[in-house]
Amino acid sequence: MIPIRWSFDKRELDSWAGLIYVIAMLLNPRLSAIWERRSIRAYTGTPIPDEVIADLLRAAMAAPSAAAKDPWRFVVVQDRAMLRRMAEALPHGRMLAEAGAGIVVCGDLSVAHDGQLSYLLQDCAAAIENLLIVAHVLGLGACWLGVHPREARIDVLRSLLRIAPPVLPVSVVAAGYPAEQKEPRTRYDSRYVHHEQW
Amino acid sequence: MIPIRWSFDKRELDSWAGLIYVIAMLLNPRLSAIWERRSIRAYTGTPIPDEVIADLLRAAMAAPSAAAKDPWRFVVVQDRAMLRRMAEALPHGRMLAEAGAGIVVCGDLSVAHDGQLSYLLQDCAAAIENLLIVAHVLGLGACWLGVHPREARIDVLRSLLRIAPPVLPVSVVAAGYPAEQKEPRTRYDSRYVHHEQW
Repeated sequence: MIPIRWSFDKRELDSWAGLIYVIAMLLNPRLSAIWERRSIRAYTGTPIPDEVIADLLRAAMAAPSAAAKDPWRFVVVQDRAMLRRMAEALPHGRMLAEAGAGIVVCGDLSVAHDGQLSYLLQDCAAAIENLLIVAHVLGLGACWLGVHPREARIDVLRSLLRIAPPVLPVSVVAAGYPAEQKEPRTRYDSRYVHHEQW
Repeated sequence: MIPIRWSFDKRELDSWAGLIYVIAMLLNPRLSAIWERRSIRAYTGTPIPDEVIADLLRAAMAAPSAAAKDPWRFVVVQDRAMLRRMAEALPHGRMLAEAGAGIVVCGDLSVAHDGQLSYLLQDCAAAIENLLIVAHVLGLGACWLGVHPREARIDVLRSLLRIAPPVLPVSVVAAGYPAEQKEPRTRYDSRYVHHEQW
């Protein structure tokens, strides 16, 4: 699949070498998952095999973490009744009702490097991004639902899933076999890039 | 390359279907970048072409962000003298002196969803993880150097690179052609996974 909405600099197309490079990039199967990963909110209802769930978690835990403290923790919810309760309780979380799984990504503040919330959030977010990429590669669609810093969402998950401090819910990843398709893309914006100094 | 230190559940190897699935996973070129990405701190000194730098930034900006606010900003440093100054000033940043580039990943707090630092950090971390994966795929080695929440490191980068609030330096990614090799792996730990409830 070629990401036809993928942006590139006109400058790159001014030479044959540049053009060939861009085409090689676009067709590189090891890169395409990065552009193809999109937020998917509609699912077919097909159950996700246990091996696939395990692979998502292996990918998540292959991320780097500050001082290799690996503060990430996961609650995998597949019970339909609980997914429906989470869907009702979480703003923008309606798709959880139909998802094959809701993976609640938490961080343990007592384990995070130097007990810093900042590191906990960065470590968990890196793990989540890995999880989302591999979900796509394995044929799933997934969507990152923000939880932290919304106190009401944190409290709901604590109460539904018995997540107690120092463990902090950071997000829920809804995942399932996709019932919608989106085109590959980047939101690259050259105005966000500075060279040598701001 | 097969990630020979990659962990899997014994249960999966108890059936032919499980074994075949694991082997297919290990050999999937669209997945291997996730396990192969490692923190690389030694570089050959070969310069990084501009197109490759642009691809790293395209990958970074293909990450999801809270409410699609894309608060990430980037300062690409390739000037050797500046890289040396950053290497001296940042703890654990010595490798920057030899890196092909130091990509300073920042977040603009005035752009982040609802002005929340938590979202800014999560969005930047997702972008950084994408950048690191694509760096590996494009033959580079890279290392995520933590900056936020260390005030001293933030101040150094503000002063060296003229990064002013509300833009906040979050990390520096050191990148270069690798002069060291590391084996693929995940740090998957089944004790970090809970099912249905904590």
